[in-house]
Amino acid sequence: MITDVDPTPASDLYSCELTKADGRKLTLYARHPISRELNAPSPPGGASAPPNPHLRWHPFRGEWVAYAGHRQARTFLPPSEFNPLAPTTDAANPTELPAGAYDVAVFDNRFPTLFGGAHDPPAAIVPTMPARGGCEVIVFTQDPSASLGTLPLSHLELIVDVWAHRQQVLGARKDVAYVMPFENRGVEMGVSLSHPHGQIYAYPFVPPLAEASLARQRTYYDASHRGLLEDHVAAEEREGRRMLYTGDHVSAFVPVFARYAYEVWIAPRVARASLVELDTPTRRDLARALKTVLLKLDGLWAKPMPYVMAFHQAPTDGQPHPYAHLRVEIYPALRMPNRIKYLAGSELAAGVFTADTLPEDKAEELRRIEVSL
Amino acid sequence: MITDVDPTPASDLYSCELTKADGRKLTLYARHPISRELNAPSPPGGASAPPNPHLRWHPFRGEWVAYAGHRQARTFLPPSEFNPLAPTTDAANPTELPAGAYDVAVFDNRFPTLFGGAHDPPAAIVPTMPARGGCEVIVFTQDPSASLGTLPLSHLELIVDVWAHRQQVLGARKDVAYVMPFENRGVEMGVSLSHPHGQIYAYPFVPPLAEASLARQRTYYDASHRGLLEDHVAAEEREGRRMLYTGDHVSAFVPVFARYAYEVWIAPRVARASLVELDTPTRRDLARALKTVLLKLDGLWAKPMPYVMAFHQAPTDGQPHPYAHLRVEIYPALRMPNRIKYLAGSELAAGVFTADTLPEDKAEELRRIEVSL
Repeated sequence: MITDVDPTPASDLYSCELTKADGRKLTLYARHPISRELNAPSPPGGASAPPNPHLRWHPFRGEWVAYAGHRQARTFLPPSEFNPLAPTTDAANPTELPAGAYDVAVFDNRFPTLFGGAHDPPAAIVPTMPARGGCEVIVFTQDPSASLGTLPLSHLELIVDVWAHRQQVLGARKDVAYVMPFENRGVEMGVSLSHPHGQIYAYPFVPPLAEASLARQRTYYDASHRGLLEDHVAAEEREGRRMLYTGDHVSAFVPVFARYAYEVWIAPRVARASLVELDTPTRRDLARALKTVLLKLDGLWAKPMPYVMAFHQAPTDGQPHPYAHLRVEIYPALRMPNRIKYLAGSELAAGVFTADTLPEDKAEELRRIEVSL
Repeated sequence: MITDVDPTPASDLYSCELTKADGRKLTLYARHPISRELNAPSPPGGASAPPNPHLRWHPFRGEWVAYAGHRQARTFLPPSEFNPLAPTTDAANPTELPAGAYDVAVFDNRFPTLFGGAHDPPAAIVPTMPARGGCEVIVFTQDPSASLGTLPLSHLELIVDVWAHRQQVLGARKDVAYVMPFENRGVEMGVSLSHPHGQIYAYPFVPPLAEASLARQRTYYDASHRGLLEDHVAAEEREGRRMLYTGDHVSAFVPVFARYAYEVWIAPRVARASLVELDTPTRRDLARALKTVLLKLDGLWAKPMPYVMAFHQAPTDGQPHPYAHLRVEIYPALRMPNRIKYLAGSELAAGVFTADTLPEDKAEELRRIEVSL
């Protein structure tokens, strides 16, 4: 089945939505019209039953924990050299994607932690509910050896438009309260597939870290009629020494309160609640900022930096959130070339991050790395 | 300098407090009087200046981040085979501990993240303050090849008494608001020293995860006049299938809302705010529960399980905290014999833990492991 998607946020973004044999959606994106001849393959090795994840309430932390036991039910493990995110070249060995002329692909995760069809959670001695929502995989490019930072700027601009489009599509769903695009990168983060890709989680509730941060932004806004991140970006820019990128619309910096040695935040200078609300010049500048930062991180030790990168946005309840200010937070996993920053007792059990370096010094190291876009 | 410590919480706990040449305290513990002839050595390679860590306020998370830049100022790195936690056998190569007849030792961390003498934090575009408080190292035994679980039960009982004593000593300090004994175990947790040891952090504020959990316990207590954890332990015991230990006073179980595959909680059945408030029979039972759980975790795959283990207690403000209920939480780092549970996008950026196994199944695996105390 092939369906055209409704007009996309950026007028020059073309997309084509297909459905796989197991019902999962696949959307292909490009800057040009996409052939309607493309198919939606699916590799062997699916689960023996449809996903049915559930949530349990943690009464001491006040948060939901997601259980996707069906991941255990995989019927088949592909050989390790098999790349399910590459375009299919051998019809007898289908991957998740077709061969053809497109730049970016998004499809439903086959073993999702959140699933729109989840139902009948088990009864337990704490509240439970179906783990509705969704988990998408975004394949950044057909080139398995590329990375977000090395992709041409125009390609990164397209990815920003795709993230915005997924935000709009997923955010419009009734079972979705919050959308978070993110990338886990590197074996140090547990990533087994090296093909450049990210994920998009569409949560059926506002996640606890988002809720806490949004509450703090709202309190500040209600008291001052100013944006907490707007004021913080301005303060970082005035001080200057932790700045990594200062564009016409977007800034990137090592925040003065960095918890990870090379932590970086990227944000538009003016508060916008989500990617959907960014105008085209700001999206373009966000792509430039992102490419600049990622090349600096990879240039630091001339090797790919492992990290978690995530977009922090407003809830998708359709209400205005004037206090909410979109930002990207990047948490690099290394504090020295071969030293992982382990999260241990103080971080995991107390919630107190400990750093043995100063954000100013780490920012200075990154500022010195010259990059060309 | 040698000073006897005031009467300790358990009448048969003997201790001897010494001061190292650099001013750091060392306290030795045993079940018998300790010789006053023991000295307090210190290995070479200290920092070039006294520690002066500081805290910066993270306005989006509402938490303090600790910076201990002085750790970079180490003057000397010992060879990797040097064990600073073993008793000194060669006076020309002193470790942190003397040789002699004692069972457990506690000393001030040489490169502390929190330090009572911290002063004059740098000005910044966010609030800052000195990182007062303290960081202690607790050496569980003189035997470098032992572990908490393999130590004789009587030795583990002594360690519980020492934890209680440190809770009392540190909690009495004016610059300390909350005390957390914990153990990071295994190279998978970034631990470089294999000699069995833990740490005790004395925070100058109530850490955010403790504050959140205490608030939830208080709300429940105020509404029901019952303890949240008392009721939860009773519910776990009624259901039974996740129970790992049921003693006269203490229970251990995989909680129904476990975030880590083999997560275990240990708690007295009746609410007690801290280790200091536990009577001797309950302390003894806590030691039995702890040994049982640790042997099960190590027995699961016949290899030492890496984990973070931490005590969660009441603030040390001297006020009554009838809602607060002491517990030990253990977060094993592995979800399969050679598979680390990585914390990535959903956990670190959204605060939503995702598990692909069910607590009931993991508890059943641990229940099957037979242990002898």
